[in-house]
Amino acid sequence: MYNFASGPAMLPKEVLQQAQSEMLDWNGTGMSVMEMPFTSDEFQSIATQAHTDLRLLLDLPDNYHILFMQGGAYGHFSLLAMNLLGKNKQADYIQTGHWSSRAINEARRYGDINIVASSEESGFDHIPEQSKWNLSNKAAYCHLTSNETADGVQFHWLPEIDGIPLIADVTSDFLTRKIDVSEYGMLYASAQKNVGVAGLTIVIIRDDLLDQSMKITPTVFNYGEQAKNYSRVNTLPTYSIYISGLIFRWISDLGGLDKVQALNKEKAEALYTAIDNNGQYYCAVNKTDRSTVNICFNLKNQSIESTFLEEASSLGLINLKGHGARGGIRASLYNAMPKSGVDALINFMQDFSS
Amino acid sequence: MYNFASGPAMLPKEVLQQAQSEMLDWNGTGMSVMEMPFTSDEFQSIATQAHTDLRLLLDLPDNYHILFMQGGAYGHFSLLAMNLLGKNKQADYIQTGHWSSRAINEARRYGDINIVASSEESGFDHIPEQSKWNLSNKAAYCHLTSNETADGVQFHWLPEIDGIPLIADVTSDFLTRKIDVSEYGMLYASAQKNVGVAGLTIVIIRDDLLDQSMKITPTVFNYGEQAKNYSRVNTLPTYSIYISGLIFRWISDLGGLDKVQALNKEKAEALYTAIDNNGQYYCAVNKTDRSTVNICFNLKNQSIESTFLEEASSLGLINLKGHGARGGIRASLYNAMPKSGVDALINFMQDFSS
Repeated sequence: MYNFASGPAMLPKEVLQQAQSEMLDWNGTGMSVMEMPFTSDEFQSIATQAHTDLRLLLDLPDNYHILFMQGGAYGHFSLLAMNLLGKNKQADYIQTGHWSSRAINEARRYGDINIVASSEESGFDHIPEQSKWNLSNKAAYCHLTSNETADGVQFHWLPEIDGIPLIADVTSDFLTRKIDVSEYGMLYASAQKNVGVAGLTIVIIRDDLLDQSMKITPTVFNYGEQAKNYSRVNTLPTYSIYISGLIFRWISDLGGLDKVQALNKEKAEALYTAIDNNGQYYCAVNKTDRSTVNICFNLKNQSIESTFLEEASSLGLINLKGHGARGGIRASLYNAMPKSGVDALINFMQDFSS
Repeated sequence: MYNFASGPAMLPKEVLQQAQSEMLDWNGTGMSVMEMPFTSDEFQSIATQAHTDLRLLLDLPDNYHILFMQGGAYGHFSLLAMNLLGKNKQADYIQTGHWSSRAINEARRYGDINIVASSEESGFDHIPEQSKWNLSNKAAYCHLTSNETADGVQFHWLPEIDGIPLIADVTSDFLTRKIDVSEYGMLYASAQKNVGVAGLTIVIIRDDLLDQSMKITPTVFNYGEQAKNYSRVNTLPTYSIYISGLIFRWISDLGGLDKVQALNKEKAEALYTAIDNNGQYYCAVNKTDRSTVNICFNLKNQSIESTFLEEASSLGLINLKGHGARGGIRASLYNAMPKSGVDALINFMQDFSS
């Protein structure tokens, strides 16, 4: 069986097996990780290891903090605005799909949001090129969504925004490719796609962006407070951090981000080629802006879409239905999806269309 | 080994064993619960079952909603104020310990908070009797902390507050005793003490309190929005809900809240008797207001407290250190702590003092 869900999604089998074997007794302590006080030496060692492994994977500069938080990326659409809009309460946003649109709607509650560029008119089928961006000059930050999970559009280049901190929602492509964190003011990601289970949100933020939060910011969601307190202002989602730690280690063992990037590229290219070379399918996204992790496509004969999904499912190729806001087919090829899963999908697509 | 931690805390062994056996394959689906889309039939069935079991345990009236949320009770100190302060932005709070004090501090960010009564002067050693409460007449709600986890003080009676919605933080005694929910406007609890793992916050709220949120409330933390959407505005902490569901079922199998209340009372009485009858120990909390779940006490000879903790730990009686804000000894006797654990602690206390 191959699970193409967009998140919560497939996890590495080795990680699940380790979690299973340690469920009642972590490392000879006689305790489940779920039972450990978050201030205990045992849990601290788990959190510190996860922290260290993530730093190494990202080659993270010293002036960046890793925060283990709650709320989901959707929660942080609001929380980042409370934390970062500062005195002028103005920010620039790039609108490239369903999730950046939500980020904009949430942020508008707290300040003046300038939409720098949008691909809405053409159905979010591309990333607007930078020559068409209308950057303001008073923005506290510029926000982008590095990969649009629902629309299958992804940034494959880095905008030049002239000293304004770049904030990126990297929920669906976090740790699927190499990234130069020093180009960003902040990255944030829900864990349940590539790096763990639902309930953990990872925020990576540069030193100079802390401590400018609005007064309305709840203490537990204040990035500065959490940075000062090693994310322990309140009880952390401990078990989720443990699972993410196992995944960081699994990625390291695979060979790090260079290696997973190459694997993910290979999987995505194989699937896009199968789509482009078969007259029964099409992908509406501009070739240069296609996502390597959420491959969205359609059947030319839309009336047989549900048959496609049912037959795929009966063969163990599950959760291929596109996002509700968009429809069509979506195959999410996160780190844990093996090449054999993509091959099985391609074979099915060929059989189905012939 | 017995783990007396205040949360994350001991879990029922049967629950951990079931989670272990289902880790890689829930109910023949070939998927871990961690891998299921939150909108999938499989996860919906898990969430619906948890929901139904909790309703039955609490005998919940139809006009109450159960919300599965994130943020922790500490997060909801702010979020409930945003959701419930309404137009007048005034509320009444009872200050009975460390956690109600934090609830007050967070709420003050959003409105005028009237401290109805406080036991701070006497070191939070009792619940102020109602004849001394100074209720305002403009409060949108009245807030109390049903059990003070750090101080070992618990409400054993229900205040009469004349039609004002009563809001209770029940984090540390949720599902440890029978409760008449219809007396409350809202209850909320972090899961990691009696009902699960860190990362899930359960909010139980009456219909008429929804839809009065401030504009600054993030969508995912808007109680009305979450109620309308069955807590699925954003991705739920799915695995935590699964674990809580197993615990709800475990409590039902034990015999429900009547039964766990009797068991918890028996455990607490045995320990308080051992403290009161031994000249080496004392409990500073008024007898009528003592917590059945967080038993806080001290050694008369404070200088041997660390020896007490070390010797207890070497015998497998772990995590007995009191809350940082309070010191001393704290034994948390949540649902999962068997009577044999309390007996072992009592035996150790007698040996240590003789």
